[in-house]
Amino acid sequence: MLELIDETIIKVRFSEVDSVGFVWHGNYVKYLEDGRESWGEKFGFSYMDMYKNNFVSPIVKIDIDYKSPLKHDDTAKIITKYIYSKAAKLEFSYTIINEKTHKIVAQATSTQVFIDLSENLFLTDPEFVENWKKKYYL
Amino acid sequence: MLELIDETIIKVRFSEVDSVGFVWHGNYVKYLEDGRESWGEKFGFSYMDMYKNNFVSPIVKIDIDYKSPLKHDDTAKIITKYIYSKAAKLEFSYTIINEKTHKIVAQATSTQVFIDLSENLFLTDPEFVENWKKKYYL
Amino acid sequence: MLELIDETIIKVRFSEVDSVGFVWHGNYVKYLEDGRESWGEKFGFSYMDMYKNNFVSPIVKIDIDYKSPLKHDDTAKIITKYIYSKAAKLEFSYTIINEKTHKIVAQATSTQVFIDLSENLFLTDPEFVENWKKKYYL
Amino acid sequence: MLELIDETIIKVRFSEVDSVGFVWHGNYVKYLEDGRESWGEKFGFSYMDMYKNNFVSPIVKIDIDYKSPLKHDDTAKIITKYIYSKAAKLEFSYTIINEKTHKIVAQATSTQVFIDLSENLFLTDPEFVENWKKKYYL
Repeated sequence: MLELIDETIIKVRFSEVDSVGFVWHGNYVKYLEDGRESWGEKFGFSYMDMYKNNFVSPIVKIDIDYKSPLKHDDTAKIITKYIYSKAAKLEFSYTIINEKTHKIVAQATSTQVFIDLSENLFLTDPEFVENWKKKYYL
Repeated sequence: MLELIDETIIKVRFSEVDSVGFVWHGNYVKYLEDGRESWGEKFGFSYMDMYKNNFVSPIVKIDIDYKSPLKHDDTAKIITKYIYSKAAKLEFSYTIINEKTHKIVAQATSTQVFIDLSENLFLTDPEFVENWKKKYYL
Repeated sequence: MLELIDETIIKVRFSEVDSVGFVWHGNYVKYLEDGRESWGEKFGFSYMDMYKNNFVSPIVKIDIDYKSPLKHDDTAKIITKYIYSKAAKLEFSYTIINEKTHKIVAQATSTQVFIDLSENLFLTDPEFVENWKKKYYL
Repeated sequence: MLELIDETIIKVRFSEVDSVGFVWHGNYVKYLEDGRESWGEKFGFSYMDMYKNNFVSPIVKIDIDYKSPLKHDDTAKIITKYIYSKAAKLEFSYTIINEKTHKIVAQATSTQVFIDLSENLFLTDPEFVENWKKKYYL
């Protein structure tokens, strides 16, 4: 099976660093979204691609393990990897690496479901997801 | 003319304090929104009141003067005052006071306009705004 | 063993709701911090209590299961429960309940460690944590 | 006098768009900081450059005029221009342009002062600022 992986770089913003000098842990959720959007643009499965198909894909689960802090002036690589699922889900694993120290900053996973614009949950893959999977031989 | 004033208290959150030990200046925009919403609930002119009338009221101007920093564990009073305008605008002035030191933390003003849900700008007061003004003898 | 539980209420802010009409999932990390701080103030173990003892307690793990969305104008109860650990960790479980519908909005856990102000990780409980545990017969 | 101008591009994030479909107005403060940091890196006057000189430069005034909304998938150019001041101040003007429509999205100004790490306000330019001004013939 193809590995659908994207890498993108984020730069720590001044406003993201807390009074201890570390990036506040809640900001990593934004970084994961940055990773997921960069992945989505690469593989034709971004928020806007879904929206054009009249679907949204809310997060139903997120797990983050923080390994070492990010600080002022740091840049980090977000490696976003698609995890294949037979179920009507969208799953990713993430590794965030400090670009200076090459240390692992965090590891995370997320799970999304598919709902249409009337908030109906889809228990099987919507057609556009089926087509997308075929395109990538999944 | 009636003075339409609201006071509400906010508590500084850990995540709002930057690496210098001050509340990051961008967070004050949230505090102003907290003040405006508290005012709106008191005087029947909240975001939801407008939305039920099929209007939204985007901010078109915001000015903030920062006088003294807020820090960890501080609470602050936000005094939100309606500024009457003949034009189809919603204007407020804000004073933020540190509850411990009684110092002025910031002074601000904001201006909003009225658009309907199709993004049409209203150059005169929408009917629900006219009615609201009458109710308060404005 | 005593159950150390706190309940606090949060109100959804306009700026927290995304373009789908749901509270953006990243904002729940703030809600958990609100719950944890409210718990800390009740039981003498807030961010500031730690800081006065020259410790900070960074998050090393966070898991959130999203069950049903929060929307505009919703208020929610955050139930924060201390999970006893022999290790030098601070663990909590959280349940977020929609105050209107009484539905479970999210369930979450978090883990923190203790570091001193020179960023040294403590592998056994610092003295102030030992004393705190004794106070609550833990 | 030299014109010290920087241009940088930002991309609207999913989490920055509110329930009306517009970027929430508070997020522009982050965009201005992105512009200012990009300017600072270009001209050797970033947050970290100041910090290495034992100074921080808190915002004391910010004014934003919102001209047209940013929406999902938009990118914008932030043009940040240094405004010379004899006083011990750091002033910028900003123009934000929608990259698709070339419309002006917002115009803003900001003012910063200089304080040392003990929170002493400087009423005349600190030495590193004087040296920086000489370097650019200001």
